[in-house]
Amino acid sequence: MGEHERPVVAYLGPEASYTHQAALSTFPNKETTTLSPRTTIADVFSAVQNRSAHRGVVPFENSSNGSVVFTLDLIANLHGMHPDVLVCGEAYVAVKHCLLGHAAGIPSTQKEGEVRIDPQFTNPLAIPKSDLSRVKKLYSHPQAWGQCKAFLATYLKGVPRHDVDSTSRAAEIVAADKTGESAALSSLAAADVFGLDVLAESINDRKGNTTRFLVIRHASSPPLPSPSLSLPTPNPPTPWKSLITFTLNHTAPGSLAQCLSAFSSHGLSLTSINTRPSGVENWHYVFFVECGGRKEDGEGEGDVNRALGELGGVARTWRWLGSWESRL
Amino acid sequence: MGEHERPVVAYLGPEASYTHQAALSTFPNKETTTLSPRTTIADVFSAVQNRSAHRGVVPFENSSNGSVVFTLDLIANLHGMHPDVLVCGEAYVAVKHCLLGHAAGIPSTQKEGEVRIDPQFTNPLAIPKSDLSRVKKLYSHPQAWGQCKAFLATYLKGVPRHDVDSTSRAAEIVAADKTGESAALSSLAAADVFGLDVLAESINDRKGNTTRFLVIRHASSPPLPSPSLSLPTPNPPTPWKSLITFTLNHTAPGSLAQCLSAFSSHGLSLTSINTRPSGVENWHYVFFVECGGRKEDGEGEGDVNRALGELGGVARTWRWLGSWESRL
Repeated sequence: MGEHERPVVAYLGPEASYTHQAALSTFPNKETTTLSPRTTIADVFSAVQNRSAHRGVVPFENSSNGSVVFTLDLIANLHGMHPDVLVCGEAYVAVKHCLLGHAAGIPSTQKEGEVRIDPQFTNPLAIPKSDLSRVKKLYSHPQAWGQCKAFLATYLKGVPRHDVDSTSRAAEIVAADKTGESAALSSLAAADVFGLDVLAESINDRKGNTTRFLVIRHASSPPLPSPSLSLPTPNPPTPWKSLITFTLNHTAPGSLAQCLSAFSSHGLSLTSINTRPSGVENWHYVFFVECGGRKEDGEGEGDVNRALGELGGVARTWRWLGSWESRL
Repeated sequence: MGEHERPVVAYLGPEASYTHQAALSTFPNKETTTLSPRTTIADVFSAVQNRSAHRGVVPFENSSNGSVVFTLDLIANLHGMHPDVLVCGEAYVAVKHCLLGHAAGIPSTQKEGEVRIDPQFTNPLAIPKSDLSRVKKLYSHPQAWGQCKAFLATYLKGVPRHDVDSTSRAAEIVAADKTGESAALSSLAAADVFGLDVLAESINDRKGNTTRFLVIRHASSPPLPSPSLSLPTPNPPTPWKSLITFTLNHTAPGSLAQCLSAFSSHGLSLTSINTRPSGVENWHYVFFVECGGRKEDGEGEGDVNRALGELGGVARTWRWLGSWESRL
């Protein structure tokens, strides 16, 4: 990438995906950065690894449906394809799923008050804006099904679900199906971009449904290489977070507690912990922890550096995966 | 359930599911127990909660694809529907997925050596036994897609995937579609039960792909109520495991480390840790830990009891979810 080209930010596309919204909120200046869609989360990692993009934006965790395991496996570099990818930022996007499709011109006969409100869900159940009886195929990202359980169980029970790579790709597919039998769980923005009707709005089970995204960089690309890639400084300043992955020495009892006490003994609170199969041996895991604080450049400087030093003495393997300012 | 009726064991069906195989291996005596299929994992929990079944068998964790989040959320009783369900056993089943369907009578033109073997996968890529070009729809449980990535990417790229409640339900659906355009990722046993052809065998990415199942009971049903429900004692005897769930006191820094040190300070090793969204507040989690040892009936007796006493002083909420003998 030449010095005079605009820095490229790869994101899970196509346009109007929630990841696109996260990328826009993080890199809002179209004059100084180019947002570039990719087909899969793995493609975003590859673009950063092979330096065809300066930054990448990928979904990481949903407030009601939990971690995005594809992203965890890629960050852990389980398959050895992305050894140089680090995290350098995060973004939170409010996720209000809509059902998008081709309205039949028949208004919904469903009236408010007729619908079953399941007490296990906190969002009032959305009422379809038009008749859904001709919807025979649903498209979305697998994460979205788990966020819209009540609506799907009430209005679209038994309708086959097609997993695709992103919610906006789902809208793109539905736009191409002129029979009107397809519908997508996607964003309101995608209705505009792909010329679809909103058949129902805000169909997620929980109010405040939010997805957290990570901004990733190549290890050789400094966190703040140019003004256009600098993430805006929160005002007031917010705490830093660091992401670390490690594996255990399975011959030593209590090795997980030892690894975690490396953080607490330096006053670092853990804000999340995840595990995934190690990919090496059954029932061995890769652990992911987020802690407060940042790794400093100097060796042995700061609490995170000291915690990592201690972790190195007890974990079988470990990697620091980045530090960034919290956006929560 | 009358005294003279045979105890009922509910499992995620239909027949020939991997959960059915786990139930058969745990309760092999047809004379003394009745295995009874249920449609969803939640249905198995409900059967145990409302005591229409003495025991339930549910999938918990796959060696290559990780935890079954549906089961975690049900065990945590996130929706308040299953407050009395406890774990009383486990079973491990080797999972060799097959592609089942209606063979076209055209042998595969694929020859060994022609296929791309991706180094990230450890199982040699399976060769289809017959032509797959007419397969237009795939059915399986969502967990199975993630266990057969290489085969699907190589031979069935872009073919729409339909999520259903179990791999054997997928086979049942495919058996009913006489067009031959449907295929299921399912077990070899399901080919027999539903009269399907094996289009490809052992299509999972990893050798040794194994799923762990849990046996669940009602809290008021003792772990060993009758000889027919007694799980066979492993020979030689194996260690016990206990499952505990807890939530954190978020105002206290280091509260996760404190909760985990309740276990290590009593010499208990943690064998797994999982987190799920709490369902109460965004970015608050329910933690699940498995440790060695068993909870004894007497208060304050034994290491697990002492650890739980200490946990009670630092966690916001906690629940013991059962102790059982390891089958690993």
